[in-house]
Amino acid sequence: MTEAFASRRSDVLPFRAMDVLAEANLRLARGEPVISLAVGQPDAPTPAAALEAARRHLERGRIAYTDASGLSGLRRRIARHYGEAYGVEVEASRIVVTTGSSAGFNLAFLAAFDPGARIALAAPGYPAYRNILRVLGLVPVEIPVDVSTGYLLTAERLAAAHRQAPVDGVLVASPANPTGTVTPPAELQRLIGFCEDAKIRFISDEIYHRLAYAGGEATALSFSDAPFVVNSFSKYYCMTGWRVGWIVLPPEMVRVAERIAQSLYISPPELSQVAAAAVFDATEELDRVRETYVRNRDLLMHELPTLGFRDIAPIDGAFYAYAGIPEGEASASEFCRRILAECHVAMTPGIDFDLDRGEGFVRISYACGHAALRDALGRMRSAAGR
Amino acid sequence: MTEAFASRRSDVLPFRAMDVLAEANLRLARGEPVISLAVGQPDAPTPAAALEAARRHLERGRIAYTDASGLSGLRRRIARHYGEAYGVEVEASRIVVTTGSSAGFNLAFLAAFDPGARIALAAPGYPAYRNILRVLGLVPVEIPVDVSTGYLLTAERLAAAHRQAPVDGVLVASPANPTGTVTPPAELQRLIGFCEDAKIRFISDEIYHRLAYAGGEATALSFSDAPFVVNSFSKYYCMTGWRVGWIVLPPEMVRVAERIAQSLYISPPELSQVAAAAVFDATEELDRVRETYVRNRDLLMHELPTLGFRDIAPIDGAFYAYAGIPEGEASASEFCRRILAECHVAMTPGIDFDLDRGEGFVRISYACGHAALRDALGRMRSAAGR
Repeated sequence: MTEAFASRRSDVLPFRAMDVLAEANLRLARGEPVISLAVGQPDAPTPAAALEAARRHLERGRIAYTDASGLSGLRRRIARHYGEAYGVEVEASRIVVTTGSSAGFNLAFLAAFDPGARIALAAPGYPAYRNILRVLGLVPVEIPVDVSTGYLLTAERLAAAHRQAPVDGVLVASPANPTGTVTPPAELQRLIGFCEDAKIRFISDEIYHRLAYAGGEATALSFSDAPFVVNSFSKYYCMTGWRVGWIVLPPEMVRVAERIAQSLYISPPELSQVAAAAVFDATEELDRVRETYVRNRDLLMHELPTLGFRDIAPIDGAFYAYAGIPEGEASASEFCRRILAECHVAMTPGIDFDLDRGEGFVRISYACGHAALRDALGRMRSAAGR
Repeated sequence: MTEAFASRRSDVLPFRAMDVLAEANLRLARGEPVISLAVGQPDAPTPAAALEAARRHLERGRIAYTDASGLSGLRRRIARHYGEAYGVEVEASRIVVTTGSSAGFNLAFLAAFDPGARIALAAPGYPAYRNILRVLGLVPVEIPVDVSTGYLLTAERLAAAHRQAPVDGVLVASPANPTGTVTPPAELQRLIGFCEDAKIRFISDEIYHRLAYAGGEATALSFSDAPFVVNSFSKYYCMTGWRVGWIVLPPEMVRVAERIAQSLYISPPELSQVAAAAVFDATEELDRVRETYVRNRDLLMHELPTLGFRDIAPIDGAFYAYAGIPEGEASASEFCRRILAECHVAMTPGIDFDLDRGEGFVRISYACGHAALRDALGRMRSAAGR
């Protein structure tokens, strides 16, 4: 097969976690007892309140386009959430509902940047950032962070990179995927202040909010109206497959983003929006799910070192452990392949998140049930003869 | 408000049909008896079989990411459809399920073209094509067509444009929005043959298939494996708000498109895919809806001339009438504004579809019930004093 006819910009790396998902699905279909710790999605079902809202809406029969910016009731509900959760007032008009956070990033990048613009991000980091940027003709500027500083991208590190070669934007995720790093509020404020002074667009990925286990969660909107804030119903809210999220825009960008969304997406899925509007009332159910993550995290923090994993990232938020592979393993890709074949446990090789150093690391998602995680770790322990 | 900080590429025109939708929704919320003939979406509900499949799937509780290319069962069902409907064999591996046809176009453009590439399309045409192309750094090359040739973009016209200034791709919609033009199979074959010889990428928009009223519907796949074929569950299948469609890729582009989809969309909405897989069994219900369009089309063909509309496009397919505004009307935008205010009937000004000549035309969607269309035309007749 030739790809001679493909565009140059389509020559991005695969998102290996999705390839691992496809492989795990194949093995499951063959009857193998696969436990997936590979993909960043909760094992827990969509909360009952959201399912019930969707069920009721289905009775209407007609599932239609909504406004390109989303259902006005959902936009108002999201605005209210900022008051309730952070004590920040955000006008509903600044909120655009998106088809997952993927569409939120795409909209932010397109609205803010022309081809050739340079966007700083921490490495390791979410690979889709890098791939979306490349596909859109933008230049990801990866700033390496490591375990010695808790994988934190600081204003100082950003300033140093900007002095070396100016950037046009920066994307900061807190809690971060894959490292679980939470940017402390004071550091977030410093980053945003630096960007405002230097006229750098700030994009705040807050899709793992409500999943910071050691506190310290702040929204960029507490400090300024200038950032683009991307969020999602996929993670804390357990609604991955619904593909629904939102973006909060700087006021002058609202119409710009709406115009792009009209042509690029028409509208987000209606049923997903109806379900999402109900999920804010499911806090009790969702906090029980979160409690499982807390137990899983405790288990991993205890077990990973005894299984030989090293340089373990903070695990302060999201639901990932990012850890160096045991001594003697040649590469993360090879290690993951073997563990999947021998133990039927799927993990993601770090190369997804860090092109330079990732073959030394794996990402373990602990968004599964506690028994499943315990089982997976037990299999790995047996295989390792530990 | 300033847009000083916005990217240049985000400076696309709004999709006015979506603005009209937002305005109509506002008026409906205020209790005005608005009849919308503005947006290209069926008034008919999602078929019962699809609703039932979604309802059953909701009972599982967990709505998850699927493979980035979509559920394998749905991909196989779509492949089977090509055999059943067209007698063409298409491998399921060439089919990627997309979040509406919007994502299909985006994937095709990104996979095939680098910034600066020139893509030919007929004007008038669907505005989102032009806007997506611009946002992605591509150059729409609009080839004017008009009522004298039934708004048909022929191989001859394309060849002439290509001789003047070479193009890298061409997008042909049949049936076409907003004109209803159906490209005859022999002409489609000529277009595809010319493109293969000239190494021009061919993108076939087939989202209005099964809605050609005078016959002559052919898929580009009957003639070649080289075209990108975009399709959708929104139109004939009455599933707009679910946001689900598909693309059939040239074999060598499958992995390219999958890689882009992994990062840009993660996966299409799961519940929508489950519902879509069931909708192929709803032909009886859907053909009743189609029968309404046939009656609506007959009514419009009879009534539009008596209401003073001129230069009426073929109305051979899709569910649109594209017609010149009555003599004495200054502009379509002004005409549509007045009809919405006076008659509570929403139509789309032609300027959405044709930047040069569109102010002389309106697009009337007849995907509504027959009584509603009759009511709308009656109101317009009263207002015009005819």
